[in-house]
Amino acid sequence: MAIDFQQDILSPVATDFAAMDQFINEGISSKVALVMSVSKHVVEAGGKRMRPIMCLLAAQACGETDLTRTQKLAAVIEMLHTATLVHDDVVDESNLRRGRPTANATWNNQTAVLVGDFLIARSFDLLVDLNHMPLLKEFSTGTCEIAEGEVLQLQAQHQPETTEEIYLDIIYGKTSRLFQLATEGAAMLAGKPEYRTALKKYAGHFGNAFQIIDDILDYTSDKETLGKNIGDDLMEGKPTLPLITALKNTHGEAHQMIYKSIATGGLDDLDQVIQVVQNSGALDYCRKRAHEETQAAIDALELLPNTQARQALFNLAHLALNRIQ
Amino acid sequence: MAIDFQQDILSPVATDFAAMDQFINEGISSKVALVMSVSKHVVEAGGKRMRPIMCLLAAQACGETDLTRTQKLAAVIEMLHTATLVHDDVVDESNLRRGRPTANATWNNQTAVLVGDFLIARSFDLLVDLNHMPLLKEFSTGTCEIAEGEVLQLQAQHQPETTEEIYLDIIYGKTSRLFQLATEGAAMLAGKPEYRTALKKYAGHFGNAFQIIDDILDYTSDKETLGKNIGDDLMEGKPTLPLITALKNTHGEAHQMIYKSIATGGLDDLDQVIQVVQNSGALDYCRKRAHEETQAAIDALELLPNTQARQALFNLAHLALNRIQ
Repeated sequence: MAIDFQQDILSPVATDFAAMDQFINEGISSKVALVMSVSKHVVEAGGKRMRPIMCLLAAQACGETDLTRTQKLAAVIEMLHTATLVHDDVVDESNLRRGRPTANATWNNQTAVLVGDFLIARSFDLLVDLNHMPLLKEFSTGTCEIAEGEVLQLQAQHQPETTEEIYLDIIYGKTSRLFQLATEGAAMLAGKPEYRTALKKYAGHFGNAFQIIDDILDYTSDKETLGKNIGDDLMEGKPTLPLITALKNTHGEAHQMIYKSIATGGLDDLDQVIQVVQNSGALDYCRKRAHEETQAAIDALELLPNTQARQALFNLAHLALNRIQ
Repeated sequence: MAIDFQQDILSPVATDFAAMDQFINEGISSKVALVMSVSKHVVEAGGKRMRPIMCLLAAQACGETDLTRTQKLAAVIEMLHTATLVHDDVVDESNLRRGRPTANATWNNQTAVLVGDFLIARSFDLLVDLNHMPLLKEFSTGTCEIAEGEVLQLQAQHQPETTEEIYLDIIYGKTSRLFQLATEGAAMLAGKPEYRTALKKYAGHFGNAFQIIDDILDYTSDKETLGKNIGDDLMEGKPTLPLITALKNTHGEAHQMIYKSIATGGLDDLDQVIQVVQNSGALDYCRKRAHEETQAAIDALELLPNTQARQALFNLAHLALNRIQ
């Protein structure tokens, strides 16, 4: 199924999307010039703004017709996302994101850390303006879990014993939790608690699928398609699902090489590691898991009324899956 | 006037202080082991907990008799403070704080950045539990200003043209704003808007005095007393008030040396810079400014009823001043 992002996903909320973008621009305005220019740089380096779009679509799928407040929520989601990316790039010492120089590379680690802090604070500041206490609680708890997920990932670095269960905990924090906040937040703001669980479930499973797909692409794409350096995760000894599965599926020399590769990091064995991952059946398993998570996400949508927005959320999950077809 | 911290400052709120400490311990608990151990390390490296004590005293000075909720607010204040310290140490590449190894030195920058993020998120999470929307707004706006102040400081690094006005903007963000949140937050929570302005004014001026005093001590203390490396700020080319004033008060060779020292950073001229600062009358001016700010802080307290807690806040301001007598 060929899915067009603009037509099949964005179009129901295209107007709200533009308004949301304006809220982001207002949100990052600051009397301190350096705060402004760094925030602008990192926000503009943003991709398709998938998370805020999910938020807007979720509100519409709940039957919300006036998305003015949701636009602000969606802006908060994107700003929180941007803040974590800025800090991630410091943590991973990345110079490139989506083919553009990162904040730490353009300025320095110091600036990136502090502007990331500003973006977190400003996100809460905008969120408080929505004047919705249960939403605030969900977000404050959620951002704790996101930070914990990031630390868990750090803790698992160079640990070849990392299980799929731990991997799922990590990607819950680093990806799925913010997806959930985007969609369940929209339902809360729309005053539709009956759809909240379904949308949270959709986002949680879709987030898992999305991250697994991302980790598969490390072993099947070239640098240009991916917009980041292949082997970045391997370099840092991060035990992603393809590696965890390859460890499970192999023994002897191949197993030892993957094990050592996670334990020590580095790219000395890059070509052989890719070879082993590809030949071990690990990618097939990862694809199966991505399909399962996508299916669970889509199943959750069944509980919502049949609208164009629901269809767009459905399309979004399929578009992600298409990347590994 | 000899002031004893325990007796003359802490004693009115000693019980609440212990309860507050317990809230911090609960606040930093996490299912991720690394989050826990790093948080514990940085929280325990905390000093006298001056900010939460100010918060508790402010509540009592407002006539609040049950400080249960204030204890939580005070815990939030200390956790926010700790979070900024953790990120500051990454930014400044500091290995030592109060004579103990920093988080970035004990673990690494990555861990310090992410655990700092966790502490910010958890602070908001605890704050939300207080269920007080105007307080939340004050804190969300305040933490934005704190982050902006930190970036402003970064922006001023290696800028010998930095004025006293910019310096005041910087220390407002890095020090005084959180002092204000501690005291005005207490007044808000106590439901005493009539004391809010006075307490905010006290904290703002005391914060300024406190930071100016801190910057004076760089030029009058030895490493052991200070618990940090003398010359750290100079090393990083930070234009503090002693340097800004020394630049104003000197010309010719001495002026050039200070100018170059800020512009390039480094410690090549450390001894001469200290000499020039000490001989230029800069420290006298800084002491005068510290006295003025302390006086303004104390004057603001006049608006509060005469209680033991008010006296303790008064003593706190004087204790800080005693460090440069």
